[in-house]
Amino acid sequence: MDYPIGVIDSGVGGLTVARELMRQLPKENLIYVGDTLRCPYGPRPEAEVVEFTWDMVNFLLEKNIKMLVIACNTATAFTLEELKQKLDIPVVGVIEPGARAAIKTTKTNHIGVLGTEGTIRSHAYRKALKNINNELQIEGLACPAFAPMVEKGVVSGPLARQVIEEALTPLKDWKEMDTLILGCTHYPIIKPVIEEVIGESVDVISSGDETAREVSAILGFKRQLYEGDRPVSHQFYATGDTHLFMKIANMWLKQPVTEVGRIQLGSPQSI
Amino acid sequence: MDYPIGVIDSGVGGLTVARELMRQLPKENLIYVGDTLRCPYGPRPEAEVVEFTWDMVNFLLEKNIKMLVIACNTATAFTLEELKQKLDIPVVGVIEPGARAAIKTTKTNHIGVLGTEGTIRSHAYRKALKNINNELQIEGLACPAFAPMVEKGVVSGPLARQVIEEALTPLKDWKEMDTLILGCTHYPIIKPVIEEVIGESVDVISSGDETAREVSAILGFKRQLYEGDRPVSHQFYATGDTHLFMKIANMWLKQPVTEVGRIQLGSPQSI
Repeated sequence: MDYPIGVIDSGVGGLTVARELMRQLPKENLIYVGDTLRCPYGPRPEAEVVEFTWDMVNFLLEKNIKMLVIACNTATAFTLEELKQKLDIPVVGVIEPGARAAIKTTKTNHIGVLGTEGTIRSHAYRKALKNINNELQIEGLACPAFAPMVEKGVVSGPLARQVIEEALTPLKDWKEMDTLILGCTHYPIIKPVIEEVIGESVDVISSGDETAREVSAILGFKRQLYEGDRPVSHQFYATGDTHLFMKIANMWLKQPVTEVGRIQLGSPQSI
Repeated sequence: MDYPIGVIDSGVGGLTVARELMRQLPKENLIYVGDTLRCPYGPRPEAEVVEFTWDMVNFLLEKNIKMLVIACNTATAFTLEELKQKLDIPVVGVIEPGARAAIKTTKTNHIGVLGTEGTIRSHAYRKALKNINNELQIEGLACPAFAPMVEKGVVSGPLARQVIEEALTPLKDWKEMDTLILGCTHYPIIKPVIEEVIGESVDVISSGDETAREVSAILGFKRQLYEGDRPVSHQFYATGDTHLFMKIANMWLKQPVTEVGRIQLGSPQSI
Protein backbone atom coordinates (compact mmCIF):
# COMPACT_ATOMS: atom_id res chain seq x y z
CA MET A 1 0.00 0.00 0.00
CA ASP A 2 1.85 3.08 -1.25
CA TYR A 3 0.66 5.73 1.17
CA PRO A 4 2.93 7.27 3.77
CA ILE A 5 2.91 6.65 7.52
CA GLY A 6 2.14 9.83 9.46
CA VAL A 7 4.16 10.58 12.61
CA ILE A 8 3.21 13.39 14.99
CA ASP A 9 5.06 14.78 17.98
CA SER A 10 5.07 17.90 20.10
CA GLY A 11 8.62 18.53 18.87
CA VAL A 12 11.79 16.66 17.96
CA GLY A 13 11.59 13.69 20.37
CA GLY A 14 9.49 11.67 17.97
CA LEU A 15 12.42 11.68 15.54
CA THR A 16 13.77 8.70 17.50
CA VAL A 17 10.57 6.86 16.60
CA ALA A 18 10.94 7.98 12.97
CA ARG A 19 14.55 6.74 12.99
CA GLU A 20 13.43 3.29 14.11
CA LEU A 21 10.57 3.26 11.59
CA MET A 22 13.12 4.01 8.84
CA ARG A 23 15.36 1.21 10.10
CA GLN A 24 12.70 -1.44 10.70
CA LEU A 25 10.54 -0.53 7.68
CA PRO A 26 13.05 0.74 5.13
CA LYS A 27 10.57 0.67 2.21
CA GLU A 28 7.98 2.93 3.85
CA ASN A 29 7.61 6.68 3.32
CA LEU A 30 7.10 8.86 6.40
CA ILE A 31 5.58 12.28 6.93
CA TYR A 32 6.70 13.76 10.23
CA VAL A 33 5.08 16.74 11.91
CA GLY A 34 6.73 18.34 14.95
CA ASP A 35 4.76 21.07 16.74
CA THR A 36 8.02 22.67 17.84
CA LEU A 37 6.48 26.13 18.22
CA ARG A 38 4.05 24.95 20.90
CA CYS A 39 6.14 22.27 22.61
CA PRO A 40 6.45 20.97 25.27
CA TYR A 41 2.92 19.58 25.61
CA GLY A 42 3.59 18.14 29.08
CA PRO A 43 2.66 21.23 31.14
CA ARG A 44 -0.41 22.14 29.02
CA PRO A 45 -4.01 21.40 30.03
CA GLU A 46 -5.58 18.31 28.46
CA ALA A 47 -8.01 20.27 26.25
CA GLU A 48 -5.12 22.16 24.68
CA VAL A 49 -3.13 18.99 24.00
CA VAL A 50 -6.21 17.48 22.35
CA GLU A 51 -6.72 20.58 20.20
CA PHE A 52 -3.08 20.83 19.13
CA THR A 53 -2.92 17.12 18.34
CA TRP A 54 -5.99 17.39 16.12
CA ASP A 55 -4.29 20.28 14.29
CA MET A 56 -1.44 17.94 13.35
CA VAL A 57 -3.78 15.06 12.55
CA ASN A 58 -5.93 17.16 10.23
CA PHE A 59 -2.81 18.36 8.39
CA LEU A 60 -1.74 14.73 7.85
CA LEU A 61 -5.15 13.41 6.87
CA GLU A 62 -5.07 15.66 3.81
CA LYS A 63 -1.88 13.89 2.78
CA ASN A 64 -3.56 10.46 2.63
CA ILE A 65 -1.55 8.72 5.35
CA LYS A 66 -2.29 5.01 5.80
CA MET A 67 -1.49 4.99 9.50
CA LEU A 68 -1.00 7.51 12.32
CA VAL A 69 1.78 7.17 14.89
CA ILE A 70 1.48 9.39 17.97
CA ALA A 71 5.17 9.63 18.85
CA CYS A 72 4.58 11.72 21.96
CA ASN A 73 3.78 10.34 25.40
CA THR A 74 1.58 13.27 26.48
CA ALA A 75 -0.45 13.28 23.26
CA THR A 76 -0.82 9.49 23.46
CA ALA A 77 -2.12 9.68 27.02
CA PHE A 78 -4.72 12.32 26.14
CA THR A 79 -5.80 11.52 22.57
CA LEU A 80 -5.16 7.88 21.62
CA GLU A 81 -8.64 6.55 22.43
CA GLU A 82 -10.43 9.42 20.69
CA LEU A 83 -8.25 9.19 17.58
CA LYS A 84 -8.66 5.41 17.40
CA GLN A 85 -12.43 5.84 17.50
CA LYS A 86 -12.70 8.72 15.06
CA LEU A 87 -10.16 7.89 12.35
CA ASP A 88 -10.60 5.26 9.66
CA ILE A 89 -6.88 4.45 9.63
CA PRO A 90 -4.98 2.52 12.32
CA VAL A 91 -3.59 4.68 15.13
CA VAL A 92 -0.66 3.60 17.31
CA GLY A 93 0.57 5.40 20.41
CA VAL A 94 3.93 5.20 22.10
CA ILE A 95 2.91 3.89 25.54
CA GLU A 96 1.42 0.41 25.05
CA PRO A 97 4.23 -0.94 22.84
CA GLY A 98 6.79 -0.12 25.54
CA ALA A 99 4.55 -1.69 28.18
CA ARG A 100 4.12 -4.88 26.16
CA ALA A 101 7.84 -5.18 25.45
CA ALA A 102 8.59 -4.80 29.17
CA ILE A 103 6.07 -7.52 30.02
CA LYS A 104 7.73 -9.81 27.49
CA THR A 105 11.19 -9.06 28.90
CA THR A 106 10.76 -9.07 32.68
CA LYS A 107 11.39 -12.22 34.66
CA THR A 108 10.92 -10.69 38.12
CA ASN A 109 7.71 -8.80 37.24
CA HIS A 110 9.33 -5.63 38.64
CA ILE A 111 9.36 -2.89 36.01
CA GLY A 112 10.69 0.65 36.22
CA VAL A 113 9.54 3.57 34.08
CA LEU A 114 11.51 6.76 33.35
CA GLY A 115 9.64 9.71 31.85
CA THR A 116 8.91 13.40 32.06
CA GLU A 117 7.05 14.63 35.13
CA GLY A 118 3.81 14.74 33.14
CA THR A 119 4.13 11.16 31.92
CA ILE A 120 4.99 9.77 35.35
CA ARG A 121 2.21 11.78 37.01
CA SER A 122 -0.32 10.53 34.43
CA HIS A 123 0.44 6.89 35.41
CA ALA A 124 -0.11 6.05 31.74
CA TYR A 125 2.51 3.28 31.74
CA ARG A 126 1.28 1.90 35.06
CA LYS A 127 -2.26 1.68 33.65
CA ALA A 128 -1.11 0.06 30.40
CA LEU A 129 1.00 -2.47 32.32
CA LYS A 130 -1.62 -3.28 34.97
CA ASN A 131 -4.27 -3.59 32.29
CA ILE A 132 -2.39 -6.63 30.99
CA ASN A 133 -1.00 -8.00 34.27
CA ASN A 134 -2.29 -6.97 37.70
CA GLU A 135 0.58 -8.70 39.49
CA LEU A 136 3.30 -6.41 38.20
CA GLN A 137 5.29 -4.19 40.56
CA ILE A 138 5.87 -0.84 38.91
CA GLU A 139 7.91 2.18 39.95
CA GLY A 140 7.98 5.43 38.03
CA LEU A 141 10.76 8.02 38.14
CA ALA A 142 10.49 11.49 36.63
CA CYS A 143 13.70 12.69 34.99
CA PRO A 144 12.94 16.33 34.12
CA ALA A 145 16.57 17.13 33.30
CA PHE A 146 16.98 14.56 30.52
CA ALA A 147 14.92 15.95 27.61
CA PRO A 148 16.32 19.51 27.74
CA MET A 149 19.86 18.11 28.10
CA VAL A 150 19.40 15.87 25.05
CA GLU A 151 18.02 18.75 22.97
CA LYS A 152 21.11 20.77 23.87
CA GLY A 153 23.23 17.97 22.40
CA VAL A 154 24.68 16.80 25.73
CA VAL A 155 24.27 13.07 25.10
CA SER A 156 27.56 11.52 26.27
CA GLY A 157 30.70 12.43 28.21
CA PRO A 158 31.16 13.27 31.89
CA LEU A 159 28.38 15.89 32.20
CA ALA A 160 25.70 13.63 30.70
CA ARG A 161 26.93 10.77 32.87
CA GLN A 162 26.80 12.91 36.02
CA VAL A 163 23.26 14.17 35.33
CA ILE A 164 22.04 10.64 34.60
CA GLU A 165 23.79 9.11 37.62
CA GLU A 166 22.21 11.66 39.93
CA ALA A 167 18.75 11.27 38.44
CA LEU A 168 18.86 7.48 38.59
CA THR A 169 20.05 7.25 42.21
CA PRO A 170 16.56 6.17 43.46
CA LEU A 171 16.80 3.12 41.17
CA LYS A 172 19.30 1.58 43.58
CA ASP A 173 16.44 0.85 46.00
CA TRP A 174 14.44 -1.18 43.45
CA LYS A 175 16.43 -4.34 43.93
CA GLU A 176 14.04 -6.62 42.05
CA MET A 177 13.63 -4.44 38.97
CA ASP A 178 15.02 -6.21 35.89
CA THR A 179 13.38 -4.11 33.16
CA LEU A 180 13.36 -0.35 32.69
CA ILE A 181 11.13 1.45 30.19
CA LEU A 182 12.42 4.65 28.60
CA GLY A 183 9.04 6.38 28.58
CA CYS A 184 10.12 9.50 26.72
CA THR A 185 11.10 9.67 23.08
CA HIS A 186 14.20 11.75 23.87
CA TYR A 187 15.77 9.08 26.05
CA PRO A 188 16.90 6.58 23.38
CA ILE A 189 19.57 9.15 22.45
CA ILE A 190 21.14 8.67 25.90
CA LYS A 191 20.34 4.97 26.19
CA PRO A 192 24.02 3.89 26.13
CA VAL A 193 24.80 6.11 29.14
CA ILE A 194 21.66 4.97 30.99
CA GLU A 195 22.67 1.34 30.41
CA GLU A 196 26.19 2.05 31.65
CA VAL A 197 24.85 3.66 34.81
CA ILE A 198 22.29 1.01 35.74
CA GLY A 199 24.41 -1.99 34.82
CA GLU A 200 23.88 -5.21 32.91
CA SER A 201 21.29 -6.77 35.19
CA VAL A 202 18.55 -4.47 33.91
CA ASP A 203 17.13 -4.61 30.38
CA VAL A 204 16.39 -1.17 28.99
CA ILE A 205 13.34 -0.94 26.73
CA SER A 206 12.97 2.01 24.40
CA SER A 207 9.28 2.80 23.86
CA GLY A 208 10.07 4.32 20.48
CA ASP A 209 11.82 1.22 19.13
CA GLU A 210 8.94 -0.92 20.32
CA THR A 211 6.42 1.43 18.71
CA ALA A 212 8.17 0.99 15.37
CA ARG A 213 8.03 -2.78 15.85
CA GLU A 214 4.27 -2.64 16.50
CA VAL A 215 3.69 -0.36 13.51
CA SER A 216 5.41 -3.07 11.47
CA ALA A 217 3.26 -5.76 13.12
CA ILE A 218 -0.01 -3.94 12.56
CA LEU A 219 0.68 -2.90 8.97
CA GLY A 220 1.87 -6.47 8.31
CA PHE A 221 -1.21 -7.90 9.99
CA LYS A 222 -3.44 -5.64 7.88
CA ARG A 223 -1.42 -6.43 4.72
CA GLN A 224 -0.75 -2.73 4.22
CA LEU A 225 3.04 -2.75 4.03
CA TYR A 226 4.49 -1.31 0.83
CA GLU A 227 5.89 -4.15 -1.27
CA GLY A 228 7.11 -2.41 -4.43
CA ASP A 229 10.51 -0.86 -5.09
CA ARG A 230 10.05 2.86 -5.67
CA PRO A 231 12.72 4.99 -3.98
CA VAL A 232 11.96 6.09 -0.42
CA SER A 233 11.11 9.71 0.26
CA HIS A 234 10.31 11.23 3.65
CA GLN A 235 8.78 14.61 4.44
CA PHE A 236 9.38 16.70 7.55
CA TYR A 237 7.32 19.61 8.83
CA ALA A 238 7.74 21.81 11.89
CA THR A 239 5.72 24.67 13.30
CA GLY A 240 8.77 26.41 14.76
CA ASP A 241 12.36 27.10 13.71
CA THR A 242 13.07 24.79 10.78
CA HIS A 243 16.85 25.28 10.92
CA LEU A 244 17.06 24.04 14.49
CA PHE A 245 14.75 21.14 13.61
CA MET A 246 16.94 20.22 10.63
CA LYS A 247 20.08 20.36 12.76
CA ILE A 248 18.65 17.96 15.34
CA ALA A 249 17.17 15.70 12.64
CA ASN A 250 20.58 15.43 11.02
CA MET A 251 22.17 14.50 14.32
CA TRP A 252 19.57 11.90 15.30
CA LEU A 253 18.52 10.30 12.03
CA LYS A 254 20.87 8.09 10.10
CA GLN A 255 20.16 9.78 6.79
CA PRO A 256 20.48 13.45 5.83
CA VAL A 257 17.45 15.74 6.04
CA THR A 258 17.80 18.58 3.53
CA GLU A 259 14.33 20.06 3.64
CA VAL A 260 11.93 20.87 6.46
CA GLY A 261 8.63 22.56 5.68
CA ARG A 262 7.49 25.34 7.98
CA ILE A 263 3.77 25.09 8.65
CA GLN A 264 1.29 27.03 10.75
CA LEU A 265 -1.17 25.03 12.79
CA GLY A 266 -4.12 26.47 14.72
CA SER A 267 -4.63 30.16 15.30
CA PRO A 268 -1.62 32.41 16.02
CA GLN A 269 -3.11 32.95 19.50
CA SER A 270 -2.68 29.28 20.37
CA ILE A 271 1.08 29.48 20.80
CA MET B 1 -13.58 -9.25 25.41
CA ASP B 2 -14.20 -12.50 27.26
CA TYR B 3 -13.72 -15.06 24.51
CA PRO B 4 -10.75 -17.41 24.41
CA ILE B 5 -7.74 -17.24 22.09
CA GLY B 6 -7.50 -20.34 19.89
CA VAL B 7 -4.08 -21.92 19.35
CA ILE B 8 -3.51 -24.69 16.80
CA ASP B 9 -0.47 -26.82 16.16
CA SER B 10 0.39 -30.07 14.46
CA GLY B 11 1.41 -31.41 17.86
CA VAL B 12 3.07 -30.29 21.10
CA GLY B 13 5.54 -27.68 19.76
CA GLY B 14 2.94 -24.92 19.92
CA LEU B 15 2.82 -25.36 23.69
CA THR B 16 5.86 -23.06 23.83
CA VAL B 17 3.72 -20.39 22.17
CA ALA B 18 0.89 -21.13 24.62
CA ARG B 19 3.35 -20.82 27.51
CA GLU B 20 4.40 -17.38 26.35
CA LEU B 21 0.78 -16.33 25.78
CA MET B 22 0.00 -17.35 29.37
CA ARG B 23 2.99 -15.37 30.62
CA GLN B 24 2.51 -12.24 28.51
CA LEU B 25 -1.31 -12.22 28.66
CA PRO B 26 -2.08 -13.77 32.07
CA LYS B 27 -5.76 -12.73 32.02
CA GLU B 28 -6.60 -14.48 28.74
CA ASN B 29 -8.17 -17.93 28.35
CA LEU B 30 -6.65 -20.25 25.74
CA ILE B 31 -7.99 -23.24 23.85
CA TYR B 32 -5.15 -25.32 22.44
CA VAL B 33 -5.57 -28.00 19.79
CA GLY B 34 -2.65 -30.30 18.92
CA ASP B 35 -3.13 -32.64 15.97
CA THR B 36 -0.75 -35.13 17.59
CA LEU B 37 -2.22 -38.12 15.75
CA ARG B 38 -1.34 -36.70 12.34
CA CYS B 39 1.89 -34.84 13.17
CA PRO B 40 4.40 -33.97 11.88
CA TYR B 41 2.91 -31.82 9.11
CA GLY B 42 6.31 -31.01 7.58
CA PRO B 43 6.59 -34.00 5.23
CA ARG B 44 2.91 -33.88 4.11
CA PRO B 45 1.70 -32.39 0.80
CA GLU B 46 0.33 -28.84 0.95
CA ALA B 47 -3.30 -29.89 0.26
CA GLU B 48 -3.23 -32.21 3.26
CA VAL B 49 -1.78 -29.58 5.58
CA VAL B 50 -4.51 -27.17 4.45
CA GLU B 51 -7.23 -29.78 5.06
CA PHE B 52 -5.92 -30.79 8.50
CA THR B 53 -5.51 -27.17 9.56
CA TRP B 54 -9.12 -26.41 8.58
CA ASP B 55 -10.21 -29.40 10.69
CA MET B 56 -8.66 -27.73 13.76
CA VAL B 57 -9.95 -24.28 12.80
CA ASN B 58 -13.54 -25.51 12.39
CA PHE B 59 -13.37 -27.21 15.79
CA LEU B 60 -12.25 -23.92 17.38
CA LEU B 61 -14.70 -21.68 15.54
CA GLU B 62 -17.55 -23.52 17.28
CA LYS B 63 -16.00 -22.47 20.59
CA ASN B 64 -16.27 -18.76 19.78
CA ILE B 65 -12.59 -17.89 19.81
CA LYS B 66 -11.76 -14.18 19.40
CA MET B 67 -8.43 -14.81 17.66
CA LEU B 68 -6.61 -17.67 15.96
CA VAL B 69 -2.91 -18.32 16.49
CA ILE B 70 -1.27 -20.75 14.06
CA ALA B 71 1.53 -21.99 16.30
CA CYS B 72 3.04 -24.22 13.63
CA ASN B 73 5.53 -23.11 10.99
CA THR B 74 4.32 -25.52 8.28
CA ALA B 75 0.65 -24.65 8.76
CA THR B 76 1.51 -20.94 8.80
CA ALA B 77 3.41 -21.22 5.53
CA PHE B 78 0.54 -23.02 3.78
CA THR B 79 -2.64 -21.57 5.32
CA LEU B 80 -2.09 -18.10 6.84
CA GLU B 81 -3.21 -16.08 3.81
CA GLU B 82 -6.32 -18.19 3.22
CA LEU B 83 -7.34 -18.13 6.88
CA LYS B 84 -6.78 -14.38 7.11
CA GLN B 85 -9.07 -13.88 4.13
CA LYS B 86 -11.79 -16.30 5.14
CA LEU B 87 -12.13 -15.79 8.89
CA ASP B 88 -13.82 -12.83 10.57
CA ILE B 89 -11.43 -12.96 13.54
CA PRO B 90 -7.78 -11.90 13.50
CA VAL B 91 -5.33 -14.64 12.53
CA VAL B 92 -1.65 -14.58 13.52
CA GLY B 93 1.02 -16.98 12.27
CA VAL B 94 4.36 -17.82 13.80
CA ILE B 95 6.70 -16.70 11.01
CA GLU B 96 6.29 -12.95 10.57
CA PRO B 97 6.61 -12.08 14.29
CA GLY B 98 10.01 -13.81 14.43
CA ALA B 99 11.07 -12.06 11.23
CA ARG B 100 10.06 -8.63 12.56
CA ALA B 101 11.81 -9.18 15.89
CA ALA B 102 15.00 -10.17 14.06
CA ILE B 103 14.82 -7.02 11.91
CA LYS B 104 14.43 -4.94 15.06
CA THR B 105 17.39 -6.68 16.72
CA THR B 106 20.03 -6.99 13.99
CA LYS B 107 22.69 -4.35 13.59
CA THR B 108 24.69 -6.11 10.86
CA ASN B 109 21.64 -7.05 8.74
CA HIS B 110 22.91 -10.65 8.73
CA ILE B 111 20.23 -12.98 10.09
CA GLY B 112 20.33 -16.75 10.56
CA VAL B 113 17.28 -19.04 10.69
CA LEU B 114 17.11 -22.50 12.28
CA GLY B 115 14.13 -24.71 11.47
CA THR B 116 12.94 -28.11 10.32
CA GLU B 117 13.88 -29.18 6.82
CA GLY B 118 10.39 -28.26 5.59
CA THR B 119 10.52 -24.75 7.04
CA ILE B 120 14.01 -24.03 5.69
CA ARG B 121 13.14 -25.47 2.26
CA SER B 122 9.96 -23.35 2.11
CA HIS B 123 12.06 -20.15 2.50
CA ALA B 124 9.13 -18.77 4.52
CA TYR B 125 11.38 -16.74 6.83
CA ARG B 126 13.51 -15.50 3.95
CA LYS B 127 10.37 -14.27 2.16
CA ALA B 128 8.98 -12.61 5.30
CA LEU B 129 12.32 -10.91 6.00
CA LYS B 130 12.98 -9.80 2.41
CA ASN B 131 9.43 -8.55 2.11
CA ILE B 132 10.30 -5.92 4.72
CA ASN B 133 13.96 -5.32 3.88
CA ASN B 134 15.58 -6.40 0.59
CA GLU B 135 19.07 -5.65 1.85
CA LEU B 136 19.15 -8.38 4.50
CA GLN B 137 21.59 -11.27 4.24
CA ILE B 138 19.86 -14.46 5.34
CA GLU B 139 21.13 -17.97 5.90
CA GLY B 140 18.90 -20.91 6.77
CA LEU B 141 20.02 -24.09 8.53
CA ALA B 142 17.84 -27.18 8.87
CA CYS B 143 18.22 -28.94 12.23
CA PRO B 144 16.19 -32.16 11.76
CA ALA B 145 17.54 -33.73 14.96
CA PHE B 146 16.29 -31.02 17.34
CA ALA B 147 12.50 -31.50 17.45
CA PRO B 148 12.56 -35.30 18.02
CA MET B 149 15.30 -34.85 20.65
CA VAL B 150 13.24 -32.23 22.51
CA GLU B 151 10.11 -34.40 22.42
CA LYS B 152 12.14 -37.21 23.99
CA GLY B 153 12.97 -34.87 26.87
CA VAL B 154 16.67 -34.48 26.01
CA VAL B 155 16.87 -30.74 26.54
CA SER B 156 20.10 -30.18 28.48
CA GLY B 157 23.22 -32.09 29.53
CA PRO B 158 26.12 -33.43 27.45
CA LEU B 159 24.04 -35.29 24.83
CA ALA B 160 21.86 -32.29 24.00
CA ARG B 161 24.97 -30.12 23.90
CA GLN B 162 26.77 -32.49 21.54
CA VAL B 163 23.80 -32.75 19.14
CA ILE B 164 23.39 -28.97 19.10
CA GLU B 165 27.12 -28.28 18.68
CA GLU B 166 27.32 -30.61 15.70
CA ALA B 167 24.20 -29.21 14.05
CA LEU B 168 25.32 -25.61 14.49
CA THR B 169 28.86 -26.11 13.13
CA PRO B 170 27.99 -24.35 9.81
CA LEU B 171 27.13 -21.20 11.80
CA LYS B 172 30.85 -20.61 12.36
CA ASP B 173 31.16 -19.51 8.74
CA TRP B 174 28.52 -16.77 9.06
CA LYS B 175 30.85 -14.27 10.63
CA GLU B 176 28.57 -11.26 10.28
CA MET B 177 25.42 -12.91 11.66
CA ASP B 178 24.33 -11.18 14.88
CA THR B 179 20.74 -12.47 15.11
CA LEU B 180 19.46 -16.04 14.96
CA ILE B 181 15.77 -16.93 14.62
CA LEU B 182 14.54 -20.14 16.24
CA GLY B 183 12.08 -20.96 13.45
CA CYS B 184 10.53 -24.01 15.11
CA THR B 185 8.29 -23.98 18.16
CA HIS B 186 10.24 -26.85 19.77
CA TYR B 187 13.49 -24.93 19.90
CA PRO B 188 12.74 -22.48 22.75
CA ILE B 189 13.00 -25.51 25.07
CA ILE B 190 16.69 -25.83 24.16
CA LYS B 191 17.35 -22.09 23.78
CA PRO B 192 19.76 -21.98 26.77
CA VAL B 193 21.99 -24.65 25.18
CA ILE B 194 21.81 -23.00 21.75
CA GLU B 195 22.84 -19.68 23.33
CA GLU B 196 25.73 -21.37 25.13
CA VAL B 197 26.95 -22.97 21.92
CA ILE B 198 26.77 -19.89 19.68
CA GLY B 199 28.07 -17.43 22.26
CA GLU B 200 27.11 -13.98 23.43
CA SER B 201 27.69 -12.09 20.18
CA VAL B 202 24.49 -13.49 18.62
CA ASP B 203 20.99 -12.59 19.80
CA VAL B 204 18.63 -15.56 19.72
CA ILE B 205 15.03 -14.77 18.78
CA SER B 206 12.30 -17.23 19.64
CA SER B 207 9.50 -17.01 17.07
CA GLY B 208 6.99 -18.29 19.62
CA ASP B 209 7.78 -15.58 22.19
CA GLU B 210 7.49 -12.95 19.48
CA THR B 211 4.19 -14.39 18.30
CA ALA B 212 2.78 -14.02 21.81
CA ARG B 213 3.99 -10.42 21.82
CA GLU B 214 2.20 -9.71 18.52
CA VAL B 215 -0.98 -11.40 19.71
CA SER B 216 -0.85 -8.98 22.64
CA ALA B 217 -0.21 -6.05 20.27
CA ILE B 218 -3.04 -6.93 17.91
CA LEU B 219 -5.63 -7.67 20.60
CA GLY B 220 -4.54 -4.46 22.33
CA PHE B 221 -4.74 -2.53 19.08
CA LYS B 222 -8.24 -3.90 18.44
CA ARG B 223 -9.24 -3.26 22.09
CA GLN B 224 -10.14 -6.92 22.48
CA LEU B 225 -8.03 -7.81 25.51
CA TYR B 226 -9.97 -9.18 28.47
CA GLU B 227 -10.06 -6.54 31.21
CA GLY B 228 -12.16 -8.17 33.94
CA ASP B 229 -11.00 -10.40 36.78
CA ARG B 230 -12.64 -13.80 36.35
CA PRO B 231 -10.28 -16.72 37.06
CA VAL B 232 -8.28 -17.99 34.11
CA SER B 233 -9.16 -21.35 32.60
CA HIS B 234 -7.41 -23.00 29.66
CA GLN B 235 -8.55 -25.98 27.59
CA PHE B 236 -6.32 -28.51 25.84
CA TYR B 237 -7.31 -30.95 23.11
CA ALA B 238 -5.24 -33.53 21.24
CA THR B 239 -6.09 -35.95 18.47
CA GLY B 240 -3.57 -38.55 19.67
CA ASP B 241 -2.39 -39.98 23.01
CA THR B 242 -3.64 -37.57 25.68
CA HIS B 243 -1.38 -38.98 28.42
CA LEU B 244 1.76 -38.27 26.46
CA PHE B 245 0.40 -34.82 25.60
CA MET B 246 -0.33 -34.12 29.26
CA LYS B 247 3.13 -35.26 30.29
CA ILE B 248 4.84 -32.91 27.84
CA ALA B 249 2.44 -30.06 28.69
CA ASN B 250 3.31 -30.43 32.36
CA MET B 251 7.02 -30.32 31.58
CA TRP B 252 6.85 -27.31 29.27
CA LEU B 253 4.12 -25.13 30.73
CA LYS B 254 4.59 -23.34 34.01
CA GLN B 255 1.22 -24.40 35.37
CA PRO B 256 -0.22 -27.90 35.81
CA VAL B 257 -2.44 -29.38 33.08
CA THR B 258 -4.84 -31.89 34.62
CA GLU B 259 -7.19 -32.49 31.71
CA VAL B 260 -6.66 -33.00 28.00
CA GLY B 261 -9.64 -33.73 25.77
CA ARG B 262 -9.25 -36.38 23.11
CA ILE B 263 -10.89 -35.32 19.86
CA GLN B 264 -11.25 -36.83 16.42
CA LEU B 265 -10.65 -34.54 13.47
CA GLY B 266 -11.30 -35.43 9.84
CA SER B 267 -12.09 -38.93 8.64
CA PRO B 268 -10.28 -41.92 10.22
CA GLN B 269 -8.64 -42.50 6.82
CA SER B 270 -6.84 -39.17 7.03
CA ILE B 271 -4.29 -40.35 9.62
